Order: sequence, then structure tokens, then C-alpha cells
Amino acid sequence: MTYTLVLLRHGESEWNALNLFTGWVDVHLTEKGVAEGRRAGELLAERGILPDIVFTSLLRRAIGTANLALDAADRHWIPVIRDWRLNERHYGALQGKNKAEIRDKYGDEQFMLWRRSYDTPPPPIESGSEFSQDGDPRYAGIEAPATECLKDVVARMVPYWESDIAPRLRTGKTVLVAAHGNSLRALVKHLEDISDEDIAGLNIPTGIPLRYELDENLRPIGAGEYLDPEAAAAGAAAVASQGGNK
Amino acid sequence: MTYTLVLLRHGESEWNALNLFTGWVDVHLTEKGVAEGRRAGELLAERGILPDIVFTSLLRRAIGTANLALDAADRHWIPVIRDWRLNERHYGALQGKNKAEIRDKYGDEQFMLWRRSYDTPPPPIESGSEFSQDGDPRYAGIEAPATECLKDVVARMVPYWESDIAPRLRTGKTVLVAAHGNSLRALVKHLEDISDEDIAGLNIPTGIPLRYELDENLRPIGAGEYLDPEAAAAGAAAVASQGGNK
Repeated sequence: MTYTLVLLRHGESEWNALNLFTGWVDVHLTEKGVAEGRRAGELLAERGILPDIVFTSLLRRAIGTANLALDAADRHWIPVIRDWRLNERHYGALQGKNKAEIRDKYGDEQFMLWRRSYDTPPPPIESGSEFSQDGDPRYAGIEAPATECLKDVVARMVPYWESDIAPRLRTGKTVLVAAHGNSLRALVKHLEDISDEDIAGLNIPTGIPLRYELDENLRPIGAGEYLDPEAAAAGAAAVASQGGNK
Repeated sequence: MTYTLVLLRHGESEWNALNLFTGWVDVHLTEKGVAEGRRAGELLAERGILPDIVFTSLLRRAIGTANLALDAADRHWIPVIRDWRLNERHYGALQGKNKAEIRDKYGDEQFMLWRRSYDTPPPPIESGSEFSQDGDPRYAGIEAPATECLKDVVARMVPYWESDIAPRLRTGKTVLVAAHGNSLRALVKHLEDISDEDIAGLNIPTGIPLRYELDENLRPIGAGEYLDPEAAAAGAAAVASQGGNK
């Protein structure tokens, strides 16, 4: 018995297009992002990889991408579970800031430390800031972070994987997880047992389904497979080079 | 303590626009239907009626309307529950047929009997018919009907109301039910204790939220309120007159 898991990073958002740090700010998809969501569903349908259940973050770029993909794959009717633990990494005080401007202001080393170090979070966002989630009802009842490094994301994502996602896989369901660059990096780090150092080099492109076959212990059998490998390679390179352009 | 329930019939579908009996056939929204979905969400937001949980049928016109409305109301992140018991009435052998042609062929009396009598279902759809749901995976594990009258819809809808929707209301959640003309008529019949005869005169327009305040026994306090009463009156009249045009 093997299990099928599909990871899907949301399509291009308005702030991806503007080269801004986004984190928990709840921005919309661009037209390109909408098209990416539909294309993701077409790729799933073409390959006959049909999710039985979908998990999403609480952010509309992931929710919208899942809706578009599932509609295109004729799986819009499957059960849905949403949880903040699938949210993007909270980018702290960098939320709403231009990546190239931050790079210019703080230098390459600090910029890459904030973007890709495993355990150095950006400064926390100030309460009352325009881009904080103060008072957002979707986070009522949780201790929402004010900043996160990837290690923090792993610390919320992996327990959720164990408690909520893994049990559905074990019942034989094909599971789709529609989430974000860093929450999916956290999950891939766990699945593939990638070291704290090597995870810095892993970039996940937007809008291309990443399929894993898992064994009975939910360990990957072989590498994850992007359903459009050429677009995935180009997309990952684009993610890696962010910060270069304003 | 009172409870807030919002009912929302999907926006215009491609087959509403073509004047075809639809039932369980899973057609798309038209552009007008998409706009209606967004407008529904704007009406909810303007009035500060913010759903905490949404129930939908398994049909994309209701699912899409809910997605559009919730996104417009900034409530896209709430929990979602989908169930076939919220589906439109199964229209049996009439599915896919033009309403005006059926009226011409069978006469006014038979036409209205099929459309609005409480307990006369249309002939069952033939297995293997283009518009049957044979083999549709979303209905695996249920005994899908081959035709339904409104009484049949009441018989599946009301137990679901009691078992799944009412308990969420009793926890104080504002509940949105995004469904269909006849599944919502079945629910309103139950809520308002409308007789088998009088329910024939009740028509629910597309895309306009219908709000109920419910008492501690989940009985309506006063009449249901359409959030856009003028558009609702025009829409209900349009539903009542269906069959007149090809």
C-alpha cells in the first residue's frame, strides 16, 4: 500500500508580482495566479491524480488556488479543511516591504539570512502596524506569531501534519495540501529529512502540483515529482533570484 | 440568545440562462451568476452579517457562489462542510430538457405538477442517460435518487438540518447555507412550518442572502429578510414565471 500526497504552492499573488514580503498579509492572486491555479487542476486531471480531500491555509491566495485547481479537475466537491498552521511563514517587520529595497538597505548577507536561514527570524512586526494581523478574527483563540523563521514554521507544521494530515493519508485518501512557499518547504524538509543547512537551497515554484508517493510509514518513495517539470525548474530559479529586481 | 442563519441560492447558472431543468447536473455559473455571488458577499459585509461556517451542496454552482460571496465578505477562511443532502432536487428524466418545450409538450397542468407539486416526482432518469449521475464518484456510498419531488427533498434535508446544521447554530455560530432553489424551499418549509399546499407559491431568487433570526428552539423570529428586498421580489417573480420562454 502506498499513499499519494500532492503539494501545491499558490499561484502568483499581487505581492509576488510587486516583489514584496507577504507572510500573513492576505493578498489576492493576480490574473497569472488565477491561470496557474486552473493549470494546476488541469495537470492533476490529465494525470488522473484526483484529490479526495484538500487542506488549505487561512490565506486567500492558497484558498483561491485550491478552489481554481479543484474546479478545473472536477473535484470542487471534496471535503475541505483549513488551518492557520499551513499559513506562510510570518515575515515579521518585513511584511509589506520591497525585497529589493530591503536587500539594498541591509545588504546581501542580512537579506539572505532573513530569507533563507533556518533559525533567524526577522524583527517582530509592531502591534498596530498596517501589515500586522491584530484583531483579525481568523486568528482569535490562537497565539499568532509576530515573526517566524523556518524553524518556527516546522515547529507548527509538523505536529499538524502528524495529527491531521497523516491520518487521512493512512485511510487511503489522496491528499492535496494547498499552501505557501515556506509552509511547504517545512513539510518537504520533514518528509525528505533535509538538513537545516540544505533546506536553504530548496525553492518551491508557484502553481505546479508536486506529487509524492509515500510508503506505509509515510516516507517518500523516490523524489517528489512536479507535474510540469520544465515550468517547475524555471519557477524555482525565479524564486531563488527574488530580491534582484524592484 | 438568538441565532443567525443565512440562506443563499446560487447565482445564475448556464442552464438557468438556457431555461433547462438542471437538478443534479453540475453546470457552471454564468458571468451574471459570478457577479451575483460577489454581490451577495458585499451585502453580507455591508450588514455586518459574517458567517462563521458555511455549508454547501456538492454542486459547483453553489460551491462557486459560496466561494465568491465569502471572498467578497473577507470570510473565505471559515470552515466549510459539503453534503449531497443540500443538492438541488433531482429532476429525473427532465434533467437537461428545456422548460418551455416540456410545457408545450405536456401542457401547463403536468408542467406545474412536476415543478411545484409537493409529492409528484418527474419520471426517473434512465441509467446511462447523458444527464444521469451514474458512476459519479461524489455519490459513491450513497443511494443517489433517480428522481425527486419536493417531499423527497424535505425527507433528506430536514434530518441533515437537525443532525449537522442545527448543532452549529446552537453553539452560537452564524451559519451560511449555500444551496439551491428546492433544497432551500425544503428548509424554509420546515423552518416556517409552511403547508404542503402553500409551499408551491414560495420562490427563492438567485444570489440574494436570506437572513433568519432563530429563537432558542431554532424557530424564526419574524419573517426571513432578503438583504436586497427589491432585487429579491423581482427575482422571485422571474423564478415563478419560468417555462414561459425558450
